[in-house]
Amino acid sequence: MAATAGLPRSLGRVLRGRTSDALISLLGPQRFLSTTFKASDLQIELNKHPKSKPDPKDLVFGKYFTDHMLMIEWSQEKGWGKPHIKPFQNLSLHPASSALHYSVELFEGMKAFRGPDKRIQLFRPMMNMNRMLRSALRTSLPPFDKSELLECIRRLIHLDQDWVPHAEATSLYIRPTFIGTEPSLGVAKSRHALLYVILGPVGAYFATGTFSPVSLLADPRFVRAWMGGVGDCKVGGNYGPTIYVQMEAAKEGCQQVLWLYGDDHQITEVGTMNIFVLWKDQQGDLELVTPPLNGIILPGVIRQSLLDLAREWGEFKVSEKVITMAELIQGLEENRVKEMFGAGTACVVCPVNKIFYQGKNYHIPTMENGPEIAKRFLKELTDIQYGRVASDWVYPV
Amino acid sequence: MAATAGLPRSLGRVLRGRTSDALISLLGPQRFLSTTFKASDLQIELNKHPKSKPDPKDLVFGKYFTDHMLMIEWSQEKGWGKPHIKPFQNLSLHPASSALHYSVELFEGMKAFRGPDKRIQLFRPMMNMNRMLRSALRTSLPPFDKSELLECIRRLIHLDQDWVPHAEATSLYIRPTFIGTEPSLGVAKSRHALLYVILGPVGAYFATGTFSPVSLLADPRFVRAWMGGVGDCKVGGNYGPTIYVQMEAAKEGCQQVLWLYGDDHQITEVGTMNIFVLWKDQQGDLELVTPPLNGIILPGVIRQSLLDLAREWGEFKVSEKVITMAELIQGLEENRVKEMFGAGTACVVCPVNKIFYQGKNYHIPTMENGPEIAKRFLKELTDIQYGRVASDWVYPV
Repeated sequence: MAATAGLPRSLGRVLRGRTSDALISLLGPQRFLSTTFKASDLQIELNKHPKSKPDPKDLVFGKYFTDHMLMIEWSQEKGWGKPHIKPFQNLSLHPASSALHYSVELFEGMKAFRGPDKRIQLFRPMMNMNRMLRSALRTSLPPFDKSELLECIRRLIHLDQDWVPHAEATSLYIRPTFIGTEPSLGVAKSRHALLYVILGPVGAYFATGTFSPVSLLADPRFVRAWMGGVGDCKVGGNYGPTIYVQMEAAKEGCQQVLWLYGDDHQITEVGTMNIFVLWKDQQGDLELVTPPLNGIILPGVIRQSLLDLAREWGEFKVSEKVITMAELIQGLEENRVKEMFGAGTACVVCPVNKIFYQGKNYHIPTMENGPEIAKRFLKELTDIQYGRVASDWVYPV
Repeated sequence: MAATAGLPRSLGRVLRGRTSDALISLLGPQRFLSTTFKASDLQIELNKHPKSKPDPKDLVFGKYFTDHMLMIEWSQEKGWGKPHIKPFQNLSLHPASSALHYSVELFEGMKAFRGPDKRIQLFRPMMNMNRMLRSALRTSLPPFDKSELLECIRRLIHLDQDWVPHAEATSLYIRPTFIGTEPSLGVAKSRHALLYVILGPVGAYFATGTFSPVSLLADPRFVRAWMGGVGDCKVGGNYGPTIYVQMEAAKEGCQQVLWLYGDDHQITEVGTMNIFVLWKDQQGDLELVTPPLNGIILPGVIRQSLLDLAREWGEFKVSEKVITMAELIQGLEENRVKEMFGAGTACVVCPVNKIFYQGKNYHIPTMENGPEIAKRFLKELTDIQYGRVASDWVYPV
């Protein structure tokens, strides 16, 4: 019999050197509830069966995934567990999981770019981390340390670095995801959650040097987000209902949806992108306009970057303000509209050439005007993203 | 060598009598795409390790599940697969599944009741099937035959019939769920989906014979659903964002949220229930009011049943119309408000005794008035549900 026999079991453990287990037993688990995970605790299990990589010419958005994924579990009881990098695999989820019933789920979209020197870098990743934390709080999922998550993601990308494609205008898409895994059906705060990150190579949005403009359905019967809702968070429920509307747009021969809001038909977003209009205002001054972050607009990283670049250029007015269909149509009739484009992580900028609204097609002369500013945004942004121009907006992997 | 050697392989199968396989090979699978599943194709795998059943006194909503579940897979390529009843188990889901990212998910909530003769019955189940199909179409998930699904559910309940509790006011909760399992990240129609049904015993919502009234936070900063959205469908995205607001209500000492809409603060729903007000209108006539199905109201089965019962009684006005906070407050000030209650599958009716609105508490005299009509609704509905009174609203299992 050991010398510690007869002592309380947990104290016995301390004496035998198993201090941390013993302290948990002595003090109760709630004192050791982890309020964040730490990248330094990363546990890595390598994939012994790596996949062959797709041909960069065949890359389709969101279809291919790399060999590994990041998984971090949280429970109300224990707090955050250790972060794990594991072989890419299916999730085993309780059929009552809150993510599957009540959309307790949120995500981010970001990219890693390989520069001419072959080095890999992220673009303003802390903006994604900030937004993800905001989405988590609104979804009643637990907070986390944004820098620790970013470091875990950096190490995941580093491990799967051969998956960052070398071909021009390609990149590695990064999808941090945070879901409620509460295994019961009450509509309540999830006591179990899983944060995971998957990666996949993606191709160029446009063939090199050419812009393909898109046509939009603007139908006030369909509203993406509303004041008092969660349109400013990147949560699942903002996306599923748009698929039906996207199919309605296709029926009308349109490629995307221009989302309107309110009785005055305010222009809010396009597809899953923010929207920008470059026009001469009623005083004749050149102005770049995008809707303000008033609760129904997703605070896009590219949106903010275009605003930052344009303000740095200082060559025209830059406004975050409401713009209605009536104002846009008046601008078109008075030949004041120069360019209109979506802005998002997938395409950077995406020109608009047509809007179908209340039974009528409105031609938008974006392509006839270059599109000078859209092209300039695309060049300056991608020069930074791919490391062709130095910038403190990038973060090395 | 068989006599059919040398013939095309599929034709050889016809000659050997394997007609249906052969026809599929000859005509191509698209001709055999299943547009519905059939209950007669049910494949049943029994659970060899049945769980012990919880004490009826300990039943908590949505926490316990029975031994089996129904699972039916769909793919764009093959259509509907055969329905399977399997041991209750975790789902294995691709981490890019559209349900986990874009809330391609919907559900239903219904109950099976055990009557005094021990027989089990469902309450107006085809209303749930109708709503589920409507939710599926809005979510761009595939249609199905509602009668076949109901028959599959009936057989699942029949198999797990010992799980329908015997204690008074208990029941078996039924959760049909339909999720997108598309394993890619494009925001598009899911080409893979899973319909599944889980069951669990649930306890009495109120202790026998007593009503516990609830207090409500009515805060126009939070909006549940909006015109042009999906508030009239039972989709996941309508629920997740409400959890945060429910916690805000708790901070204000309220138990549930009274959802307001529009600048005139229309009363729309309460928690996850429809809302009813019984008052004297401005002409002094007794009137039962619930908001109309104008796009932002979930068409509840209990809501419809209360309207149907009240119209059958023919003792007071029954109105589906907009009611604003200003109208309600005026009614309270003029002592015209008799009762206010939520209506839903969980509780049938749930009386309201207080509303906290714009910094002020409003007492609702529901309990002081019996609540006569709420109690009568509860009795008549549960008499039907539990088979104490004959009705064509019930469906035998």
